[in-house]
Amino acid sequence: MSGEETIEYDVFGRACPSRPTLDHITNRWGLLALGALADGPMRFNALARRVEGVSQKMLAQALQALERDGFVRRDVQTTNRLHVEYSLTDLGREMADKVLELIGLLQDRMPQVLAAQESFNARD
Amino acid sequence: MSGEETIEYDVFGRACPSRPTLDHITNRWGLLALGALADGPMRFNALARRVEGVSQKMLAQALQALERDGFVRRDVQTTNRLHVEYSLTDLGREMADKVLELIGLLQDRMPQVLAAQESFNARD
Repeated sequence: MSGEETIEYDVFGRACPSRPTLDHITNRWGLLALGALADGPMRFNALARRVEGVSQKMLAQALQALERDGFVRRDVQTTNRLHVEYSLTDLGREMADKVLELIGLLQDRMPQVLAAQESFNARD
Repeated sequence: MSGEETIEYDVFGRACPSRPTLDHITNRWGLLALGALADGPMRFNALARRVEGVSQKMLAQALQALERDGFVRRDVQTTNRLHVEYSLTDLGREMADKVLELIGLLQDRMPQVLAAQESFNARD
């Protein structure tokens, strides 16, 4: 593909390549990993502690998908013992900012959400 | 819970009630349904066409979760034949706006994402 072509990407389209990437960003662990890395570079175990409840396997899978999409950088330093650090790329930071806005709004609106759930449950 | 208490919700916390709601907003079908409804009220079948690839069952499930959380309103009119229309609540509109920003940025950055994927795949 030449860089000058304008292709329209549309997540509503069944076969659009933006769909799998949307999943990598918005699945629970990918989204929380992006949000956590917005605080700065982190090692794998620190990330696993921050994203409570994630398994090593699910976190590794989420990070690899984000790395492949160009949102996360994985740096291996072998100075003393194996030290793997994850950080956001510029592209990842842009996405993380949007993700954090969504998270922030949700956390802020949780009292209304819980009230809505209660009134839904009380129906009939 | 009294309305005056300040409770901190934190999606990074394992047991925070914001986590299931985050999933309802960000799972593929919930997210696309929110995004689609930002264009205005829609009937179920129109939504199912707009959110390409969704099954009736998955869409119904996504919409019910969003309704229970207070993001989506479901109106049943029985004037002539059964007519069920979905629309965003004010709360849902706020969320949909954030979701659309994320989608818009992603669609915009897909050329970089695809380039990153190519260079990741070409490694080794």
